[in-house]
Amino acid sequence: MSRSDRPVQAFVPGHVTAFFSPRWHDDPARTGAIGAGITLSDGVTVRAEPADETAITLNGRGIEMAPVEAALAELDATVNVMADSPLPVGAGFGVSGALTLGAALATNHVSDVGCTENELVSIAHRAEVRASTGLGDVVAQARGGVPIRLEAGDPDHGKLDGVPGPARIEYLAFGELSTSDVITGDTEALSAAGERALSGLTERPSLQRVFELGRRFAREADLMTPRVEAVIGDVRSAGGDATMAMLGETVVALGSGLSDAGYDAQSCTTCPGGAALEWAPPG
Amino acid sequence: MSRSDRPVQAFVPGHVTAFFSPRWHDDPARTGAIGAGITLSDGVTVRAEPADETAITLNGRGIEMAPVEAALAELDATVNVMADSPLPVGAGFGVSGALTLGAALATNHVSDVGCTENELVSIAHRAEVRASTGLGDVVAQARGGVPIRLEAGDPDHGKLDGVPGPARIEYLAFGELSTSDVITGDTEALSAAGERALSGLTERPSLQRVFELGRRFAREADLMTPRVEAVIGDVRSAGGDATMAMLGETVVALGSGLSDAGYDAQSCTTCPGGAALEWAPPG
Repeated sequence: MSRSDRPVQAFVPGHVTAFFSPRWHDDPARTGAIGAGITLSDGVTVRAEPADETAITLNGRGIEMAPVEAALAELDATVNVMADSPLPVGAGFGVSGALTLGAALATNHVSDVGCTENELVSIAHRAEVRASTGLGDVVAQARGGVPIRLEAGDPDHGKLDGVPGPARIEYLAFGELSTSDVITGDTEALSAAGERALSGLTERPSLQRVFELGRRFAREADLMTPRVEAVIGDVRSAGGDATMAMLGETVVALGSGLSDAGYDAQSCTTCPGGAALEWAPPG
Repeated sequence: MSRSDRPVQAFVPGHVTAFFSPRWHDDPARTGAIGAGITLSDGVTVRAEPADETAITLNGRGIEMAPVEAALAELDATVNVMADSPLPVGAGFGVSGALTLGAALATNHVSDVGCTENELVSIAHRAEVRASTGLGDVVAQARGGVPIRLEAGDPDHGKLDGVPGPARIEYLAFGELSTSDVITGDTEALSAAGERALSGLTERPSLQRVFELGRRFAREADLMTPRVEAVIGDVRSAGGDATMAMLGETVVALGSGLSDAGYDAQSCTTCPGGAALEWAPPG
């Protein structure tokens, strides 16, 4: 019996990828992306309760999210998934990965499935890969901090390291970019740029380098939009450090970089720990 | 430049091993223990500041701790290490591992060494192994939660999983047992008992099983003291679940197991995340 009388919820940090290089394989557990990014104290809180039919809400509104449904199917559970998040969807914060991993953690608990943490991370990772909604968010969100993805894939196949934190982070989201369109398109230049960035980070690992290499990657992979480029330029002119979220029309800055440059940005911190179950607040 | 103006400290959770089986190798990075345990929200907070000579204090008192000194030597840094903890030393809470990992994290930051998280965990793990003060605490403390150590060794060689949390934990420490005496003695029966317990947990992973298999291990490995056995019996009679900390004359109980049985115990929770740097409180 792993259930407790006290209600629990899953918290999964947001994750902004700074640079990446996809790794494809017939087996979704071995598919993913190497690269690096930043997990955020702003994330997704997920509760689950057994139900006759599966339903998913985000901030009180019914949504459809293929990887969540796939993960619940693999757990053989029908539940009501209730998620809340301050993060925008489709803007490069890994909300789909967070919702999928959070739903897996919460459902495993309420439905007494008996999976380990690695099994739940693998289920969520494979569901994201199959749905083309993400390649590396889930394993990064499971670790927390500032994850370096050295080898791609689920916990049985991937390998992670991390840049020690902590740091204040600011972000400003303009709009969506389709992860699916980019990762299912021609990724040769992107893939090479991501590999160069990862080599650059492992040579000299620091949070500043994550931002510097992320900017270079976004330009080399031809993913930077004019609006994002202009804002990053403003942050740099004000003496700050910023890069683009992969994949969203979103700028992420170190410290108070965006507000120092005059932008009205959201602020949070790097998330010291990874995804975990926690007790739900009363009521 | 990875230093920030705002002072930071490392927090490393306490870790109670429920059962283990040592794995020896000429290379300390490949040495360690498989097994399982529980990380605690009660842990060790460590600050470091550059100094002319290395000195270590725990709760304001100067101490000598061989693995901390070895880790600092590997980082080629001389610092003043200031640690605080509510946990007793030598009683099976992994205080030496926590202090070593915390000192490595904090020193890497203040002395701008530039190591990644895995490198710091490896340095602390190898220092503990060489000093015979622990075999598996450091990697468990780096992960947090309820770690299952599937393969022994540092992050490049070991493999971890986890039982999803959260849980309230109580503990009661009677006194010290020497980790060094046990792990450098005849460990054949202990090793086999630890392997059986790990198989039992991976077959059916749950927090209750960690306690159940821990009790069986302590008896089979002939490590349970009469006092610990009596207290565990009282907790079980009151309907609770408890086991012995490896290695200390310490009882750890799930939920309110010890207080339900009439003992005046310390209480905390499982620690959702692993060791991390955090901002130091002002002042």
